[in-house]
Amino acid sequence: MDFRENLKKYQKIVNNELEKYLRKQECPEKILNNSMEYSLMSGGKRLRPILVMATYELFKNDVEKCFPYAVAIEMVHNFSLIHDDLPGIDDDDFRHGKPTNHKQFNEATAILAGDGLLNNAYIVISEDLKKSKKEDLDKKLQVFSEFTTSVDRMIAGEYVDTEYEGKEIQAEYLDYIHRNKTGALLRLCVRMGAILADCNREDLDKLTTYAEKIGLAFQIKDDILSEEGNEEILGKPVGNDKEKKKCTYVSKYGLKEAKKKLEVIIQYAIKQIQSYGEKAEFLKELALYIQNRNK
Amino acid sequence: MDFRENLKKYQKIVNNELEKYLRKQECPEKILNNSMEYSLMSGGKRLRPILVMATYELFKNDVEKCFPYAVAIEMVHNFSLIHDDLPGIDDDDFRHGKPTNHKQFNEATAILAGDGLLNNAYIVISEDLKKSKKEDLDKKLQVFSEFTTSVDRMIAGEYVDTEYEGKEIQAEYLDYIHRNKTGALLRLCVRMGAILADCNREDLDKLTTYAEKIGLAFQIKDDILSEEGNEEILGKPVGNDKEKKKCTYVSKYGLKEAKKKLEVIIQYAIKQIQSYGEKAEFLKELALYIQNRNK
Repeated sequence: MDFRENLKKYQKIVNNELEKYLRKQECPEKILNNSMEYSLMSGGKRLRPILVMATYELFKNDVEKCFPYAVAIEMVHNFSLIHDDLPGIDDDDFRHGKPTNHKQFNEATAILAGDGLLNNAYIVISEDLKKSKKEDLDKKLQVFSEFTTSVDRMIAGEYVDTEYEGKEIQAEYLDYIHRNKTGALLRLCVRMGAILADCNREDLDKLTTYAEKIGLAFQIKDDILSEEGNEEILGKPVGNDKEKKKCTYVSKYGLKEAKKKLEVIIQYAIKQIQSYGEKAEFLKELALYIQNRNK
Repeated sequence: MDFRENLKKYQKIVNNELEKYLRKQECPEKILNNSMEYSLMSGGKRLRPILVMATYELFKNDVEKCFPYAVAIEMVHNFSLIHDDLPGIDDDDFRHGKPTNHKQFNEATAILAGDGLLNNAYIVISEDLKKSKKEDLDKKLQVFSEFTTSVDRMIAGEYVDTEYEGKEIQAEYLDYIHRNKTGALLRLCVRMGAILADCNREDLDKLTTYAEKIGLAFQIKDDILSEEGNEEILGKPVGNDKEKKKCTYVSKYGLKEAKKKLEVIIQYAIKQIQSYGEKAEFLKELALYIQNRNK
């Protein structure tokens, strides 16, 4: 199966699982639920849950074991998008080519839908923990713990990003934003897949480095696309970062240097997983996909 | 020890624990942390953590065992206050006599501080689960599960409340708001204390009814205070609900009827815990305190 087919297969699994898990609140008003569903099912790339599953499959075949964590991470990702798009933060009108949540519904609904999605991630995790076998609990509690602290880092990264909008930024802070705002969750995905599959310490270290590198690459590519991407393909306006004087790799180092950095980082990520051979083909292609994507 | 002294003793415990647990993020910018701390330490009544501890102490003496859950619930409560106060929801300027979070800092910081507090509650729970004895895990996973679904109900209740602001409301929806927006968390507090203390099914049922009744009473009293409370003591403007045409017990049933209902409900709550005699004295006084408080 080639990479694109594999990607689609994974995306289909994620979409099916998300639809199953999306909390049917007893709420007499369904709009809150509709609003969560609107963002969750609006056609994201599903990169995070796919990373969980593909890493798990380096070691084991029963990938359904990590579905709850794949679902939970996608909920958290969408919570963060909804809140970042709010008028009080980035004030964005479009996401994935559709109106952002607060534009489609209203601000109050978007704030609460974001809150709801973050909390629903923990509903999903808690349900999985409750029905887990005793011997699986140690590793799952480790995963739950890393989940909570990674989300903490994501929120802190978003905060620093917001705080530095329109201001001159030190390299140290730009690194902090990238390591945390996007990096923490991507790192978590790979580590969750690996830990749930009972991998050993050496594998965990290598995969963590792979994840950290593609996380950084993902952010650099995002910055590049925000500068020179195709608006129609991206589904959101291009040049916004410049207009808002956002601190990005491109604004700091220039387009050429950013692209060079991206190339080096992706190659370093791929080196980490070379020892797995054929089995890691998808993760290798995924790294290249991050480098070459146009949306 | 009389009720007021006991209340202060509990409040001191909660404040100490909160200060210990408040996540010290590695974030290079401390404002997000300051913003979480600002709301968390701004002098709330600590009713929720106190309910957890006082219920636990009906059955057991080692109250420190439930500290993490007492802390987590207060974090969630403060997350909900910060987000409810936002311009996009209730747009309130004062809370506990001080500027609301977004007034003190800014909107982006308040959104992210709320997100951070919700997530920090799960950090605290996850840390406790990781170091729990194997034989305690069943009940703690039950508590974690009820925690997640109660927060879900709280968010849904807040949503319906927001949705009906300024509109004619059916009794069914008003009940829904009160059972969920405030009720779900108070019910959770009592159930967490009881479950963590290994109480039996019959006790859990009685205490759940007690909690549901004081939750309803708390909301009715809130509505009454919003109508005829003392602004200086309350620390927030009075008459706001009327101005915003908020749906409340008072707007629906009138002040006199609301007060009668409050009295009946509190007496019913107290009946549930009579069988515990002296040991339940604090919970009884707490119910009366809810009825008679002036802030």
